[in-house]
Amino acid sequence: MKKLFAEFFGTYWLVFGGCGSAIFAAGIPNLGIGFAGVALAFGLTVLTMAYAVGHISGGHFNPAVSFGLWAGGRFSAKDLIPYIIAQCVGAIAAAGTLYTIASGKAGFAIDSTKAGAFASNGFGAFSPDGYSLQSAFIAEFVLTLFFLLVILGATDKFANGRFAGIAIGLALTLIHLISIPITNTSVNPARSLSQAIFIGGEPLSQVWLFWVAPILGALAAGFLYKTLLQNHTEA
Amino acid sequence: MKKLFAEFFGTYWLVFGGCGSAIFAAGIPNLGIGFAGVALAFGLTVLTMAYAVGHISGGHFNPAVSFGLWAGGRFSAKDLIPYIIAQCVGAIAAAGTLYTIASGKAGFAIDSTKAGAFASNGFGAFSPDGYSLQSAFIAEFVLTLFFLLVILGATDKFANGRFAGIAIGLALTLIHLISIPITNTSVNPARSLSQAIFIGGEPLSQVWLFWVAPILGALAAGFLYKTLLQNHTEA
Amino acid sequence: MKKLFAEFFGTYWLVFGGCGSAIFAAGIPNLGIGFAGVALAFGLTVLTMAYAVGHISGGHFNPAVSFGLWAGGRFSAKDLIPYIIAQCVGAIAAAGTLYTIASGKAGFAIDSTKAGAFASNGFGAFSPDGYSLQSAFIAEFVLTLFFLLVILGATDKFANGRFAGIAIGLALTLIHLISIPITNTSVNPARSLSQAIFIGGEPLSQVWLFWVAPILGALAAGFLYKTLLQNHTEA
Amino acid sequence: MKKLFAEFFGTYWLVFGGCGSAIFAAGIPNLGIGFAGVALAFGLTVLTMAYAVGHISGGHFNPAVSFGLWAGGRFSAKDLIPYIIAQCVGAIAAAGTLYTIASGKAGFAIDSTKAGAFASNGFGAFSPDGYSLQSAFIAEFVLTLFFLLVILGATDKFANGRFAGIAIGLALTLIHLISIPITNTSVNPARSLSQAIFIGGEPLSQVWLFWVAPILGALAAGFLYKTLLQNHTEA
Repeated sequence: MKKLFAEFFGTYWLVFGGCGSAIFAAGIPNLGIGFAGVALAFGLTVLTMAYAVGHISGGHFNPAVSFGLWAGGRFSAKDLIPYIIAQCVGAIAAAGTLYTIASGKAGFAIDSTKAGAFASNGFGAFSPDGYSLQSAFIAEFVLTLFFLLVILGATDKFANGRFAGIAIGLALTLIHLISIPITNTSVNPARSLSQAIFIGGEPLSQVWLFWVAPILGALAAGFLYKTLLQNHTEA
Repeated sequence: MKKLFAEFFGTYWLVFGGCGSAIFAAGIPNLGIGFAGVALAFGLTVLTMAYAVGHISGGHFNPAVSFGLWAGGRFSAKDLIPYIIAQCVGAIAAAGTLYTIASGKAGFAIDSTKAGAFASNGFGAFSPDGYSLQSAFIAEFVLTLFFLLVILGATDKFANGRFAGIAIGLALTLIHLISIPITNTSVNPARSLSQAIFIGGEPLSQVWLFWVAPILGALAAGFLYKTLLQNHTEA
Repeated sequence: MKKLFAEFFGTYWLVFGGCGSAIFAAGIPNLGIGFAGVALAFGLTVLTMAYAVGHISGGHFNPAVSFGLWAGGRFSAKDLIPYIIAQCVGAIAAAGTLYTIASGKAGFAIDSTKAGAFASNGFGAFSPDGYSLQSAFIAEFVLTLFFLLVILGATDKFANGRFAGIAIGLALTLIHLISIPITNTSVNPARSLSQAIFIGGEPLSQVWLFWVAPILGALAAGFLYKTLLQNHTEA
Repeated sequence: MKKLFAEFFGTYWLVFGGCGSAIFAAGIPNLGIGFAGVALAFGLTVLTMAYAVGHISGGHFNPAVSFGLWAGGRFSAKDLIPYIIAQCVGAIAAAGTLYTIASGKAGFAIDSTKAGAFASNGFGAFSPDGYSLQSAFIAEFVLTLFFLLVILGATDKFANGRFAGIAIGLALTLIHLISIPITNTSVNPARSLSQAIFIGGEPLSQVWLFWVAPILGALAAGFLYKTLLQNHTEA
């Protein structure tokens, strides 16, 4: 049960910090943090929570990570559903808090026809810089695949594991530095769901891609890591 | 006594570095560091002092942190008042130094009717981007709550504790990346007090929120961590 | 064979992340990550992969690094060619993926007459800020020399080696902070080759400099480190 | 002798990377790295060299640091002069390389009447944002004092010393985030001297402040650390 609370708090923090920095601070004229600041914020949510509650739950905070660790033989199938539920509940609770805070500014309104509104993910007309469904799918697949390679590698028995929280958190920063213009960056189905629920409309109807592509990328990473990179003498 | 000197120097550095970067460097045209640079500066004050004097005093530099560690069972009640006094004295000394340096620029004047003047915190008309009292309260409460969850988790006996200074410092960076536009970011009553004293007027009359909300958030974190996350076999 | 897969994935990630952030995110108006964001991205590709697969292959991801480690007596001559092939194949595969994603934006076209197009390296008319061949050569030589000094020093038996991934990754960030305006920053022949192949024209004809200068700088570093800095009692 | 080569290379890298990023990359329109990027670059020169050659020479790269460590009882008086000579030679060699590279851009010229030209330090008319001599002196004194407190604390026997390279490097980043507008940030007499020599004129005649204030600040830190913070049971 402590594990599920850890996943709840960790995913709440990921969405509150990552999406919150995008909503409140990215676009302030002259002083705003821009895409680079948002990228840093997303990474730091994971870095900070990895050192805070990683020793409790393993620090997934992301359904794709849970799937990828299962595919890599590091996580039990029976824990998949409870973890994913805790992650989605945490993400939605965070989005609700963000909505409440955001609505305390005069003139607040979410424009659900605008790409990236309320930190939502999207493709085509809802891609921040106008990338197609195919580009979005490839980007989310490849980025989640490498995110999981970093996770599986950095937490390998033979690796320098105490630094895994730094490597994994900053991998998420790197992923956002590359791909915010493409899809507003997901690689995390819970994070995409929570924002889409509060917008509805087309962004909600696109949310399937941000479940399918990251989870497939994560499964591919688990398979590739076990097959090509893992030292099987550790088994 | 060494502990109180450590808290004095640490909180001086937090205010001098965090508020100083905001006052001197954030808004320089074209080359200024913006909100992201200020966020980095605040976090690095804590990261650097945590490794410098954390072994002496524990490295709080913030009355809300002292309250939260007390609520989490990690800090003695009898040390609360001396720590908070040392923190406030350090913060005010730093604000005085900043004032002296700032006044060495031709045309220097603090406009106490402007949101965020002299790095002050505020809400409503004194929120940098116009957020209400309610939004400000929720933001400060939630952010301090999670700041303390990171602190309590990263310094837990079962955690990878040598990295706590990195996780805690960068958590403060993350908090600023999210919330400078909302309240100019406090999560630290000493830091709010020191800047408000030098401005007076409305910012000083709003300083109560930056004592109440962070301390309540910190107390909530102590309770939640002990109840939901801590492994009691460590007791 | 695991080593070559590790070099393949690592160099893929270096090019996909570093060049990808430059192509997709650097120049977005107002919110773009700029040269500093690209510098951070390049460094984080190495930092993350060093902790992920460094324990497998040593984490070179760069022909100049392999040459420099050989010159410093840390890498076997017989592995040089296989490592360099794996690195170049990974880099080219990444550039191909970037091309595919980039072509999913309406109006996509590479302008091979523009300095830095598709994240290519260049000098003279193809230097982002108009630096001569001589300046480009000196910069690439000096920067790769110091990159290798950091690598050789941070992985020395007498050094604090667990932090090498952080030091080496952030050294690459630093190198980009200095020199993107000069050559668009190479210090990595595989990274230069992969982008030049997709552009052709003058950038491809300039690619020789980004093999010669970095490899000479790396060889010089190996020699200098062994001669001036290394403690020979470790032999 | 290895120690002096380590100080030579380390200070070369500090000036080449820190001042180089300011000269080449800070002011590029739209994409430039700004003061925040320069701050990061200075810090990373120290972070990277601390892990690379810190085990050889201690990693000072700065005459004020050598003085401060001597005042704190951590460095021998007889090594002061050789260290400072190696640091100044390294800094000047780096400035010469920067000059050579910079002169490879059409229209290159140093305007020695402009504040901050060729990354020089200054006050009054040569302060980037117009701060007085008194403000400049206080800022350099206080910042070097705290830089040395971080160094003395993070390398204390009772501290978590393996992280000292991160804390000290990022302390230099923090110092630049605060004070580039005030003095263009020195806290390092060798770095100030090397740039002033290549400009001459008024910036050279102001260089005395960037020797006196940092060294006095460093001496004060050594005294304060020994008196107020150090655990004398370690002696």
